[in-house]
Amino acid sequence: MARVVGERVKKGILERLNSGEVVIGDGSFVFTLEKRGYVKAGLWTPEASVEYPEAVRQLHMEYLRAGSNVMQTFTFFGGKDKLESKWKDVNEASCDLAREVAEKGNALVAGGISQTSLYKSHKNKLEIKEIFQQQLEIFTRKNVDFLIAEYFEYCEEAVWAVEVLKESGKPVATTMCIGPEGDMHNLTPGECAIRLVKAGASIVGVNCRFGPTISLATVKLMKEGLEASGLKAHLMVQSLGFHTPDCGKGGFVDLPQYPFGLEPRVATRWDIQKYAREAYNLGVRYIGGCCGFEPYHIRAIAEELAPERGFLPDASEKHDSWGSGLSMHTKPWVRARAQKEYWKNLLPASGRPYFPSLSKPDGLRMPEK
Amino acid sequence: MARVVGERVKKGILERLNSGEVVIGDGSFVFTLEKRGYVKAGLWTPEASVEYPEAVRQLHMEYLRAGSNVMQTFTFFGGKDKLESKWKDVNEASCDLAREVAEKGNALVAGGISQTSLYKSHKNKLEIKEIFQQQLEIFTRKNVDFLIAEYFEYCEEAVWAVEVLKESGKPVATTMCIGPEGDMHNLTPGECAIRLVKAGASIVGVNCRFGPTISLATVKLMKEGLEASGLKAHLMVQSLGFHTPDCGKGGFVDLPQYPFGLEPRVATRWDIQKYAREAYNLGVRYIGGCCGFEPYHIRAIAEELAPERGFLPDASEKHDSWGSGLSMHTKPWVRARAQKEYWKNLLPASGRPYFPSLSKPDGLRMPEK
Amino acid sequence: MARVVGERVKKGILERLNSGEVVIGDGSFVFTLEKRGYVKAGLWTPEASVEYPEAVRQLHMEYLRAGSNVMQTFTFFGGKDKLESKWKDVNEASCDLAREVAEKGNALVAGGISQTSLYKSHKNKLEIKEIFQQQLEIFTRKNVDFLIAEYFEYCEEAVWAVEVLKESGKPVATTMCIGPEGDMHNLTPGECAIRLVKAGASIVGVNCRFGPTISLATVKLMKEGLEASGLKAHLMVQSLGFHTPDCGKGGFVDLPQYPFGLEPRVATRWDIQKYAREAYNLGVRYIGGCCGFEPYHIRAIAEELAPERGFLPDASEKHDSWGSGLSMHTKPWVRARAQKEYWKNLLPASGRPYFPSLSKPDGLRMPEK
Amino acid sequence: MARVVGERVKKGILERLNSGEVVIGDGSFVFTLEKRGYVKAGLWTPEASVEYPEAVRQLHMEYLRAGSNVMQTFTFFGGKDKLESKWKDVNEASCDLAREVAEKGNALVAGGISQTSLYKSHKNKLEIKEIFQQQLEIFTRKNVDFLIAEYFEYCEEAVWAVEVLKESGKPVATTMCIGPEGDMHNLTPGECAIRLVKAGASIVGVNCRFGPTISLATVKLMKEGLEASGLKAHLMVQSLGFHTPDCGKGGFVDLPQYPFGLEPRVATRWDIQKYAREAYNLGVRYIGGCCGFEPYHIRAIAEELAPERGFLPDASEKHDSWGSGLSMHTKPWVRARAQKEYWKNLLPASGRPYFPSLSKPDGLRMPEK
Repeated sequence: MARVVGERVKKGILERLNSGEVVIGDGSFVFTLEKRGYVKAGLWTPEASVEYPEAVRQLHMEYLRAGSNVMQTFTFFGGKDKLESKWKDVNEASCDLAREVAEKGNALVAGGISQTSLYKSHKNKLEIKEIFQQQLEIFTRKNVDFLIAEYFEYCEEAVWAVEVLKESGKPVATTMCIGPEGDMHNLTPGECAIRLVKAGASIVGVNCRFGPTISLATVKLMKEGLEASGLKAHLMVQSLGFHTPDCGKGGFVDLPQYPFGLEPRVATRWDIQKYAREAYNLGVRYIGGCCGFEPYHIRAIAEELAPERGFLPDASEKHDSWGSGLSMHTKPWVRARAQKEYWKNLLPASGRPYFPSLSKPDGLRMPEK
Repeated sequence: MARVVGERVKKGILERLNSGEVVIGDGSFVFTLEKRGYVKAGLWTPEASVEYPEAVRQLHMEYLRAGSNVMQTFTFFGGKDKLESKWKDVNEASCDLAREVAEKGNALVAGGISQTSLYKSHKNKLEIKEIFQQQLEIFTRKNVDFLIAEYFEYCEEAVWAVEVLKESGKPVATTMCIGPEGDMHNLTPGECAIRLVKAGASIVGVNCRFGPTISLATVKLMKEGLEASGLKAHLMVQSLGFHTPDCGKGGFVDLPQYPFGLEPRVATRWDIQKYAREAYNLGVRYIGGCCGFEPYHIRAIAEELAPERGFLPDASEKHDSWGSGLSMHTKPWVRARAQKEYWKNLLPASGRPYFPSLSKPDGLRMPEK
Repeated sequence: MARVVGERVKKGILERLNSGEVVIGDGSFVFTLEKRGYVKAGLWTPEASVEYPEAVRQLHMEYLRAGSNVMQTFTFFGGKDKLESKWKDVNEASCDLAREVAEKGNALVAGGISQTSLYKSHKNKLEIKEIFQQQLEIFTRKNVDFLIAEYFEYCEEAVWAVEVLKESGKPVATTMCIGPEGDMHNLTPGECAIRLVKAGASIVGVNCRFGPTISLATVKLMKEGLEASGLKAHLMVQSLGFHTPDCGKGGFVDLPQYPFGLEPRVATRWDIQKYAREAYNLGVRYIGGCCGFEPYHIRAIAEELAPERGFLPDASEKHDSWGSGLSMHTKPWVRARAQKEYWKNLLPASGRPYFPSLSKPDGLRMPEK
Repeated sequence: MARVVGERVKKGILERLNSGEVVIGDGSFVFTLEKRGYVKAGLWTPEASVEYPEAVRQLHMEYLRAGSNVMQTFTFFGGKDKLESKWKDVNEASCDLAREVAEKGNALVAGGISQTSLYKSHKNKLEIKEIFQQQLEIFTRKNVDFLIAEYFEYCEEAVWAVEVLKESGKPVATTMCIGPEGDMHNLTPGECAIRLVKAGASIVGVNCRFGPTISLATVKLMKEGLEASGLKAHLMVQSLGFHTPDCGKGGFVDLPQYPFGLEPRVATRWDIQKYAREAYNLGVRYIGGCCGFEPYHIRAIAEELAPERGFLPDASEKHDSWGSGLSMHTKPWVRARAQKEYWKNLLPASGRPYFPSLSKPDGLRMPEK
């Protein structure tokens, strides 16, 4: 799987993970580009790769600079079921953009597919697999380095995705958008992980829908499931950049604030350093983010794990560790913030005293305590 | 002041304001580029225009697309006192980037200067004015459309800035980073406004340091001061994109969360629509944002005032008004969010039940209630 | 079990419950008398019956007036292990006070025992049973109407208590101070209920340690356990008058605020009406309160269930239903509060913006979300 | 003003204050007795002295035991305008109860009058003064030790009260239920204090409507007003036992939670120790409480000021200072709470994450920040 780049050879995803390296994923595309004006909330589709390639390229650049080792093609909700006639152009353009930026650094290109809109309505396996197949053909032609099937609510659909992707011979990672309560058919996270690995996934985990703490709790259950059944796989986590202690089984989509009022829940860089450390301690070695994860959150992962990895990301050129850059501030009380203990122990106020701190999710109500 | 652009003539800033048009400013540069990895917190200086011009250009593009009518040169803290030998290159590059993007739409270029690091230490008027003078020479050479002196804590230094800038013959806007308690010498907002207008500013107001509500309260005091003394000027507001009900005279800098834990305070797009409406009702016609204001916040101003202005910004192509794009969602409880009343009345939870909702500012303590 | 009182016969506890009546318990003694100055926090022992009988009598009177059908002897922590040489006088005085007040209304006297301080240290069954036996002798001599063994953390010790008490031939109720996670030996609530009923308890449930919502969740598990094993018993709940959504297995004792900073958690009367209704819907027919439950909370139970019971408590003489007494207020916005919908939907603010809304329990840490 | 009691002579209120003694007032009657079932919310009248004298006596006893040096007659809203034909019996019974308890300790009896329901409607001075006069006649006949005119929204009506009361020759204390914004005619607190002292009040201050912090801020303004005009008087404060940082000019009556949902705002004993210390430091020497102040809050005042006064109240027999009684607890993390620093720094959580921390007052809206 190693890849020749210019004069050097880039190690493949499994080579990296097998050797114990930490692989840093990228962060949010649809949410971040929505705030920049290039993606439509609700649809969350990736036409911007064709319409505004410079905006997509710039975001890739920021993640690369922040420390991402993976440029995921901007092909989320990129199947024909979502994009109709545009799907091919968009997938191709997204591959080209990801490759263009990946070549500027030590990053791999991952072709990404996600749940279809068809599973819930008819579960037609052939039709769904065809959509995945179409995207895979482009990924193969564009020679991506590995594949990610992500954002699956139903383990069964994710298994179908793995089955399609593994035919390429490229390594396959799969993440589900589930919490500790499991998939929408009530399979436990452990059982989901087992089925995905048996289907051929080399890397399994979760992405989206839940914040850092719950996402890690879910991955832990996956890990335990795999261990109990003697299966081996690499673990991956790409949580939301939002805190969601109050969400129910459906995750942040069911919070009344979704998607246009999530601001007070955005994680700080220190929250993400904690997340990175806990993921690492849990044995997760592919660590990234999903909606709400901005470039500085990715940088926070890279900075937290710099001791283990031996280097800082490029973007740390502009970021002194743990606020130490404040040591020159003119106000003494701001200078006093230039230390790790300060930021680690900070209790950041919401500035919103007229609002609650938790919500009851819509839809499936959370059991009240 | 009209400017010939290609075949059409762009109206100058005063022509627009004098005719009653709403002028939409831009949003955050240093904070936003810090999160993207290109600016260093604490320093907050604009070297990125030279080092990473594509990142600065992209941000300008996003604001233009979101509806900004002003491309402010990225020259904040751009004086020789801050940038030393780099100052000239940075100011020139920033002018070029602002012009390049402004020419793609109906935006003007504003050359921007800000408080120096010298005023607090020695108040040497000549030395300070020389710094402003140097930046002005570049703005003149690059032929910016008008000038903004912003982020002044001391009215006296702001007056010196206006005195320098007005020699150019270009219109001068001035904003102070003060709250209702006035400047650091205890001049009231009304008195500050009077002195600035007498010194030659055509547009006065506030920027930075305080959230939407407090910023508007301060502008109201400026307006009342001007009216009481029979002076006329256009009003301008560029508030933080953070809620700061608990800050003291020094503004958000004194909040314990500054600058790395402000996330829970970020305004929603609906908060900003409210801000835009209240600013408009107060008679403010130059409305933009400062730190924490992202492109979608600027779009929110443009969307709120679309009825008065008669058009939507380009970025609304990707944004249905008041969440109406959710009307196609598969979950009925998410579809129920596709309406103005829903988002207007939302009480967004912080997702942080272990944290408080307000902070006591450091430094000058807020009187406890 | 019927008891002749003056010329009328009072129905016994089981007659009442067997016929489907709702029995309303009393509320807090140690916590309430601590705030009135007669009980020492930390010790929580009932010497006041001897030292300040008028204070204890008055509290009994308030509960009777509020609607309580049970005057529980103030003998909590009243064993020889806690009270030493005073134990006999205190237990006797407490029986007399309870009886004196019970005779003034339609209330029964329940002799109460609670966990010993010995179980944790040595679990000497004989010694522990002797303590219970000693108290029982006084209860028998004073001819209480039934017996309550309450506040047990360990099912085994509660079973011993039931074994002792049932020898009296009087009906025995037993409540444990556990939550849904079960007892300190990790027996589930369902298993605890089964063992207690098998040991001879006619009424089982929970008291103390957890707020209304969690207490009811625990009783529900007990109910399900009994149903699954085909056992029958009456259900009883006497929750805290504090909200404890954030407590761990140990309940409110582990919250950092225990016991001197629980004020912000005190339930409103409307919270308790909701609790009474939910308890009733769950099939619980013995409904009272524990620490934090004041007379007006007991009245709230009686008022909520007045339609089912057919009468209001005496204290409702001074309380118009659902705030309707505000309809004559001089301020129109206070008059607007004179209705059920208002109070039912109220979101009562804490008035404490500098404080969090949840705590991490000490000791056994709650799993973070 | 000294009074012979048995064989000893009790010092009068002015003797005490003139000699620098701290006088501790009592706490809540109408609110506390409402929760005990004897007073009707909305009316807030004192018929209980006739109907349930033992309940009123018991509350007096608790305050005496907690350290109160004043037994205020339970005659709030006790004028003929409120009580009609019952007024005389109620006032007499209330005097007798206060005296009976006061004689058991070192407490004085204060006859209390409050604002009438007539002032707002017609301001008929003669009619209003007659109501005061009627109550005064009973106070004179019952030979109370001094007089308190309390809970006045309008300085003018308070002045009339003072004019009536001072004719008795007894010392007169007067408290208004106003905040820093002054009375309902917009007289400042300073101006109110001046007029009351000129009318003959020896002691002035505030009671009710506002929490500890705001009440002290108002007394401070009164003090400054008196000092500026060269007048001398003793200062008095009897704040709410609720936190009200968010109330407007009308105080807690305008908070949406008034009066049946104020629970989350109840002050802890530590909050009241802070209040007592701040009152003392401000020069206030008559320190008590109003609605929401329970006996343990009064004890907290007496304990905080024990070093200055040289003794503890009787009720401290059951209360070890600063939680030190927890040092014997079985759980080590509860033992760790047995110290002053712990309770002083506690951030008590509300246990209500679905609710806000502040409210917007009804009626006169608070200016939003």
